[in-house]
Amino acid sequence: MLALRMTDAGPRLEEIATPARPDEALVKVRLAGICNTDLEIVRGYAGFRGVLGHEFVGEAVTAPGRPELVGRRVVGEINAGCSGCELCRSGDPRHCPGRTVLGIVARDGAHAEFLSLPTANLLAVPDTVEDRAAVFAEPLAAAFGILERVDITPDMRVLVIGDGKLGLLCAQAVATTGATTVAVGRHRTKLDLLRRRGLATYLEDDAARLARDFDVVVEASGAESGLKRALALVKPRGTIVLKSTFHGEPRIEAWRIVVDEISVVGSRCGRFAPALEALARGTVDVLSLIEDEQPLQDGLRALEKAGAKGALKILLRP
Amino acid sequence: MLALRMTDAGPRLEEIATPARPDEALVKVRLAGICNTDLEIVRGYAGFRGVLGHEFVGEAVTAPGRPELVGRRVVGEINAGCSGCELCRSGDPRHCPGRTVLGIVARDGAHAEFLSLPTANLLAVPDTVEDRAAVFAEPLAAAFGILERVDITPDMRVLVIGDGKLGLLCAQAVATTGATTVAVGRHRTKLDLLRRRGLATYLEDDAARLARDFDVVVEASGAESGLKRALALVKPRGTIVLKSTFHGEPRIEAWRIVVDEISVVGSRCGRFAPALEALARGTVDVLSLIEDEQPLQDGLRALEKAGAKGALKILLRP
Repeated sequence: MLALRMTDAGPRLEEIATPARPDEALVKVRLAGICNTDLEIVRGYAGFRGVLGHEFVGEAVTAPGRPELVGRRVVGEINAGCSGCELCRSGDPRHCPGRTVLGIVARDGAHAEFLSLPTANLLAVPDTVEDRAAVFAEPLAAAFGILERVDITPDMRVLVIGDGKLGLLCAQAVATTGATTVAVGRHRTKLDLLRRRGLATYLEDDAARLARDFDVVVEASGAESGLKRALALVKPRGTIVLKSTFHGEPRIEAWRIVVDEISVVGSRCGRFAPALEALARGTVDVLSLIEDEQPLQDGLRALEKAGAKGALKILLRP
Repeated sequence: MLALRMTDAGPRLEEIATPARPDEALVKVRLAGICNTDLEIVRGYAGFRGVLGHEFVGEAVTAPGRPELVGRRVVGEINAGCSGCELCRSGDPRHCPGRTVLGIVARDGAHAEFLSLPTANLLAVPDTVEDRAAVFAEPLAAAFGILERVDITPDMRVLVIGDGKLGLLCAQAVATTGATTVAVGRHRTKLDLLRRRGLATYLEDDAARLARDFDVVVEASGAESGLKRALALVKPRGTIVLKSTFHGEPRIEAWRIVVDEISVVGSRCGRFAPALEALARGTVDVLSLIEDEQPLQDGLRALEKAGAKGALKILLRP
């Protein structure tokens, strides 16, 4: 099968064997997405070698133990635990120390014609959710993961910093709580996507007008300036959610965390069910985030396009 | 009266007028403590000008509205709110934006013969708690403040980093929860104080033997290395409590906070009641933290002594 692999010599399109693990489900990929994490991996992050990609919607070809899934459209949680440790036995392998992660840690990913995942990781996609929406299940789940880490209620004011792919999903996920949601970004056109959905938006230069009265600030820009802005706008005893994996080690005004008793909470992966539900109900708009779709055989060009400044979601079709 | 004041020309012993606010309590200071925050103020932190000091035990000379306190030994919460804002009306002025803070923000402090505080800030000291213990009420309350910010249960493993005055109090406060409490520091003699109370202790060089399995790590060393160690030893989804106000802006491995979904929680002041109760019950040992006691007129020398590397608590007697 054709696959986009990260090798010692960088990303390569290669013909490789179709995965064949009898203990896992085999999924024919219908559509895959390129995420910033893929781009970081291509730059050398985490030393991953193998097939790239962790965002996909596909069709289950085999599904050991769950025959009802065969032939159905599926998405899949990307963390595959050891199944033996305490965390895995409690049903949450996301922090299993022995986990593999689709296209990120020791497991071939979704930028290929087929992929393999434990059957337990798969979720059927509702018929009303088209492929181009379902392919956002993973990043949207990560956005909804914020709500697993912080209790956001309708009386709160929440600021989301960053208008990239992640920021746009986070702002929409937060807004489903009924909280007053404000977004800060660098691009009028991207912020307009949120404004059309009723959110208040500010360009970075205008953010100085914002008061320091946010109960929760979500940092989804990945920039050191975003972390600084979060600390400046969260109110005392408020919470900052770190959603972006920062490059390097940013400096942090730690004294402010102490004096104002702020909580800084990391958030990585989220459960898929709330994301699929939001897609089915149409409470979030993901289609507007699609910038382009490329055939898998043009994967290298697609990676380049996804890495261009300001690019939104690039999809790959095997 | 005699007072140790921070001036534009540095700390000075001066004769100044006794405080005379008819709306507040007047307290005759019996014993005061020197805190690292005082030393930072002397180095220019926060631009404070006025009488230094916020740790004290005294005798209430006047106490408008609470005549039963007059003549009694008292300690006092150091944050004085505006009394009008939402936070103050809810009974917690610690984050009132208009607050003054004894010896720290716009309010003369405790390194003097007398001080003034709102009567509501005062708490009577139980007769069984001697002055040299009661003078620790404020820093011990700050240590117990950790438990206001994080729920620590007996089944947890907690690491406290730092064996200075703050670290020794934090470790003892945490240990009262019944959690397995481990302390890491730089001085065998200081750690022995905790070891005598049944805590496991490690010198920094031996901390490499510790596994990454702590539910909570309290950073009380104030060193960038402490923050790094905290991130290395807290388990995924665990909590780091920042207790020290760091100088400058330390670098932080923010990616680790995200990937391992760690919470970093700031903690500043705590309520006095749990501290007084612990002192009355003898569940913490503060007397062993006393390094020396000096008369107030030797305050400048006492500041120097308190600033010496490795110094524990220096007390001032007016």
